[in-house]
Amino acid sequence: MPIPMIKKLAVIGVGLIGGSLARALREGGHVGEVVGFGRSLGNLETAADLGVIDRAEVSVAATVRDADMIVVAVPVGCMESIFSQLATSMMDGAVVTDVGSVKRGVVAMARTALGVRCSAFVPGHPIAGTEHTGVSASKADLFEHHRIILTPEDDTDVAAVARVRAMWQAAGGDVVSMSVAEHDDILAVCSHLPHVLAYMLVDLLIRRDDHKTTFDLAAGGFRDFTRIASSDPTMWHDICLGNRDALVKVLKDYQQNLDDLLSAIDRGDGQWLMDTFTRAKRARDTYIVKHQN
Amino acid sequence: MPIPMIKKLAVIGVGLIGGSLARALREGGHVGEVVGFGRSLGNLETAADLGVIDRAEVSVAATVRDADMIVVAVPVGCMESIFSQLATSMMDGAVVTDVGSVKRGVVAMARTALGVRCSAFVPGHPIAGTEHTGVSASKADLFEHHRIILTPEDDTDVAAVARVRAMWQAAGGDVVSMSVAEHDDILAVCSHLPHVLAYMLVDLLIRRDDHKTTFDLAAGGFRDFTRIASSDPTMWHDICLGNRDALVKVLKDYQQNLDDLLSAIDRGDGQWLMDTFTRAKRARDTYIVKHQN
Repeated sequence: MPIPMIKKLAVIGVGLIGGSLARALREGGHVGEVVGFGRSLGNLETAADLGVIDRAEVSVAATVRDADMIVVAVPVGCMESIFSQLATSMMDGAVVTDVGSVKRGVVAMARTALGVRCSAFVPGHPIAGTEHTGVSASKADLFEHHRIILTPEDDTDVAAVARVRAMWQAAGGDVVSMSVAEHDDILAVCSHLPHVLAYMLVDLLIRRDDHKTTFDLAAGGFRDFTRIASSDPTMWHDICLGNRDALVKVLKDYQQNLDDLLSAIDRGDGQWLMDTFTRAKRARDTYIVKHQN
Repeated sequence: MPIPMIKKLAVIGVGLIGGSLARALREGGHVGEVVGFGRSLGNLETAADLGVIDRAEVSVAATVRDADMIVVAVPVGCMESIFSQLATSMMDGAVVTDVGSVKRGVVAMARTALGVRCSAFVPGHPIAGTEHTGVSASKADLFEHHRIILTPEDDTDVAAVARVRAMWQAAGGDVVSMSVAEHDDILAVCSHLPHVLAYMLVDLLIRRDDHKTTFDLAAGGFRDFTRIASSDPTMWHDICLGNRDALVKVLKDYQQNLDDLLSAIDRGDGQWLMDTFTRAKRARDTYIVKHQN
């Protein structure tokens, strides 16, 4: 039997993302042992029952003992404490990566908390997920044909980056690299903005006196538009605060767009509406053709 | 063979909605003959080839000759001209209904254009559809378990309302009645607002220098959120102008919501974010449980 790419994988936070990565690597025979740690004992038991992990441990230190690959898949708001524990417990030569949706804050935390071990940390973000959470929603093919963004810094160990890249490719992902700043700016507009817009639309409906009838009459368009408003509030709380500057900027840009729309509707400018909607439809249709999978 | 509910159905505008209604009624044996009229000869030929209509006619007058049920399924912006032609060509006892997404403007147009025949007009709006258009996207089960809203006026003929209601029920729809004003207010928030928000989000992305990378990295959340931005621009142009007052009002309410969000992010108010997102998720999850189909 060939030696697996990863001898011992430590998954800190065995939820949708951590669990799916473990499943993918196990199914492909890329990992020897998988040990998990998390806040919820019930979730860890489920993970063991489902065969996503070999066993759960009761501390970060015990989980990462002898682990050559450590994946931190907890909400961004919990990462600092995990990094501090890793600093004193990870073995020499181990590589650490995370799956956080914002990178600026995570990198700053890792730099402070990991100290000299910081070069072994490869910041990462798989562009995959659903509105469901927990290990029971995890699946081995979650990352197939999905982009995995790595945002290594100048002082990140090159060999560590190569190992994290190989791990994600083994899990079916399509790995790309970019700077932390570029990642946070782009994700602010194509992911964080739509999520908060969906939350705020549902919020608008709830506040109305006629919200029962309104929900009742909402059609498929509303259901799809607001799917992401069923996402985990903690995660999105963390993202809003973790990517504050970029998100505030795109929210203001978007408000400007809505001002333009309002003024076009107000003055009855049919041409503006036709041009804008047609351009958007064309761009969106093109995007969909390129992403059929 | 039993006598069908409708002897001759005239479909003015054989697109997604008109075509699906014709299919549903034909499959259920509820209609004797279906005659279609529309702007695009190619689309009408497709409709005949697919068996959605028995034949196409070259004028509104010829289409509605001897028709006991007339369905106007053209964009709202084209309805006035159709109503004027119906006024001089529909037979006594015929019932007219429409499928427009806004009702205030349509009812006003019908009142003016149909004149004395106005009591035979039952304003309607099936809450169903996809982002695809044209008869080739039509399907017999489009309306199954979907709400069909009728907004009859005080002087609408009660027997006409009953016939339109029976037609939609035969097509699988779940018919409800409400006032024109209530319809337009509710649809503004649960349908028209999400559509324009999706258009404006895609518009925001297009304007960015990094739009290629941004589209490339957009995940499933973005795809679902913006599905409705692939809708027909003409239809949404008509809706924006046709439901101007209600849409402007909910857009302003929504902007106020975004202002509140911006200020919470700006001041780092994690509790506000958690409370708001949690409330929205709970409402959205409840809504989804109630609408599993």
